[in-house]
Amino acid sequence: MASGPKGFVFNAVRAGLKKEGYDFALIFSEQEASCAGVFTTNLVKAAPVLLGQERIKEGKAQAILVNSGCANACTGDLGLEDARILSQRAADLLQIKTSRILPASTGVIGERLPLNQMERILPDLVQGLSPEKAPLVAQAMMTTDTFPKLVKRNLSDGENEITILGLAKGAGMIAPHMATMLAFIITDASLSSRELENILQKATEVSFNRITVDGDTSTNDTVYALANGKIGLNEGQKKKFEEAFIDICQELAYLIVKDGEGATKTVWIKVKGALDNEAAIRLARCISNSLLVKTALFGEDPNWGRIMAAMGRSGVKFDPYQVDIYIDDVQIVKNGLSLGKEKEREAHQKMKKQEFNLIIDLKIGTGKGEILTCDLSYDYVKINAEYRT
Amino acid sequence: MASGPKGFVFNAVRAGLKKEGYDFALIFSEQEASCAGVFTTNLVKAAPVLLGQERIKEGKAQAILVNSGCANACTGDLGLEDARILSQRAADLLQIKTSRILPASTGVIGERLPLNQMERILPDLVQGLSPEKAPLVAQAMMTTDTFPKLVKRNLSDGENEITILGLAKGAGMIAPHMATMLAFIITDASLSSRELENILQKATEVSFNRITVDGDTSTNDTVYALANGKIGLNEGQKKKFEEAFIDICQELAYLIVKDGEGATKTVWIKVKGALDNEAAIRLARCISNSLLVKTALFGEDPNWGRIMAAMGRSGVKFDPYQVDIYIDDVQIVKNGLSLGKEKEREAHQKMKKQEFNLIIDLKIGTGKGEILTCDLSYDYVKINAEYRT
Repeated sequence: MASGPKGFVFNAVRAGLKKEGYDFALIFSEQEASCAGVFTTNLVKAAPVLLGQERIKEGKAQAILVNSGCANACTGDLGLEDARILSQRAADLLQIKTSRILPASTGVIGERLPLNQMERILPDLVQGLSPEKAPLVAQAMMTTDTFPKLVKRNLSDGENEITILGLAKGAGMIAPHMATMLAFIITDASLSSRELENILQKATEVSFNRITVDGDTSTNDTVYALANGKIGLNEGQKKKFEEAFIDICQELAYLIVKDGEGATKTVWIKVKGALDNEAAIRLARCISNSLLVKTALFGEDPNWGRIMAAMGRSGVKFDPYQVDIYIDDVQIVKNGLSLGKEKEREAHQKMKKQEFNLIIDLKIGTGKGEILTCDLSYDYVKINAEYRT
Repeated sequence: MASGPKGFVFNAVRAGLKKEGYDFALIFSEQEASCAGVFTTNLVKAAPVLLGQERIKEGKAQAILVNSGCANACTGDLGLEDARILSQRAADLLQIKTSRILPASTGVIGERLPLNQMERILPDLVQGLSPEKAPLVAQAMMTTDTFPKLVKRNLSDGENEITILGLAKGAGMIAPHMATMLAFIITDASLSSRELENILQKATEVSFNRITVDGDTSTNDTVYALANGKIGLNEGQKKKFEEAFIDICQELAYLIVKDGEGATKTVWIKVKGALDNEAAIRLARCISNSLLVKTALFGEDPNWGRIMAAMGRSGVKFDPYQVDIYIDDVQIVKNGLSLGKEKEREAHQKMKKQEFNLIIDLKIGTGKGEILTCDLSYDYVKINAEYRT
């Protein structure tokens, strides 16, 4: 990774929240940036989510302070106070307003942040900020993730080059006690917070909202976007910027599913021919959350009966005897009926790949939608069944 | 098992639908019986479900014809015709009207019934009917079940003795390719079909609708109730009859969860203090369907953060900071906050048992409800990941 977006510096340190490795990180913009955020819909919201929701309203931010190893969720007023204190200390060191710091946490639910340890290491965290350390931040965000998730895109109009950088962590949508999906997208382009929010909403809808690992929604899910305006963005570039931004979010979403807890397969569930797009997405989601479908994906079994059963309980109207089902280009079901064992064997071969498409055509309309999901393996159970202490 | 309800005879044979053992069975009442049924809410309904729904409307039935090994689901008009032909042949042999036969199937989805094999063995099935063979029927209904499920209750007013017998199969709510929950409750008591339906609805609501193994709803789920009226049921006994009937359904539901695919724990998720009963049930259901909660149950981990997170995405309103959580009598959370590691260790000990209660008190109302569920183990993945052919 060469340099990130201009005017941004990064650092990560070890505060001792996780058993090993970096667990506390900072992204800092030299100048105030426009900001936008998307947060968990869970009624139970972690302290950093509550604080972030409040601060994002101002439309201006200058830093993201993130830790793994402790979610600071279900920690009550004291947890909220912990998050406030931490922001304040960081703001003092960075010489900015406390409200310009966007907090994010991921890790065990129900435990307090080890505030002393974190405060003690804060000066080092600020001291070491540098433009090259974005990969360390991605590293420090990891919980049960097996690799850091970092994606960069450049846009150039010949004169100026705009950079967009995305960082994420995933694993389980809400991992074990390790909670959360976090993603930060930062850029040196100049956008108003209103513009940034529109793009973020649009991008989230077709990326982070279109993936599922285990169907659980975390108390800490957070996506922050920061645009510090170092580089002008002319009207002609806006379309391309939006495309690149969406592309980054989709790439991060893909990486999150690929690294799903215990996942051995990455599968696109594509529904078309539905009455409308909403119906298509709802069907795709229901299929992708079915344990029986997910275990069949793991077993490389084109078990279309489970797919039909999952569709049938989705609440979406369709005619079972119009449904066609494909694994990649191999059709196994036509008008709701099996095309035979030979076709299933062909489909089974396709499913041996690490990535493939499951395509469902309802043939009753033009609605379509897709969800990216992974399989359910022994390792998912192993990762999530281990006793915490 | 001594004798079943008077006037009922049973038999099971092997038609070669499963790899081994009985797979085709008949329950026959010497005289016409009042009947009632509850069926899957899945849009994709198996042929026997469509046929059963039609026939149950007449309020009279005399036989239940059931097979395992093949669900006769997603088989179109031909599948429906297969089910009709089979009923007709059985009706001819039994010398009753075809519409008096209630069909039920469970097994692989998307494959046709091996009609020839089944027709050939039908005379033997009818020939061998006897009052003692109810256990063989329970045996023949099994798919991935590890034990047959048969429950009996007697009611006596000194003179007459009423018998109620329940048979069920479960495993996965929809097992692998092996689909379905089936349950039959038969009695020699005299009830109108209207009365029977009322009791069945009430009983189903607090039994089969209060359990979850994997959250999937089968294309074949069916509960049939038959009352042949051999023994009079006086007004004074009706209350007791209803209690016994509900008791049987709850016992069968319990056995289905206990025998859930790969299950090592049977857990009552009890929610109280909710705004109303509906909210309580919805919360309990959401907790019981969370993969993260289910893997924690398997891991004997009192991971209450996952419970809070599952509750938070249920759509039910509650105050996280009023919630108390217990494992049996060990309280681990008070007002949404942890009571510490020592309590969690105590709870962990409780979770080593094969059965325990997870109790959530919202403390904002008087609504309560419970769901019976099981854990998610390696074996669930193993059972459901194996390739079918």
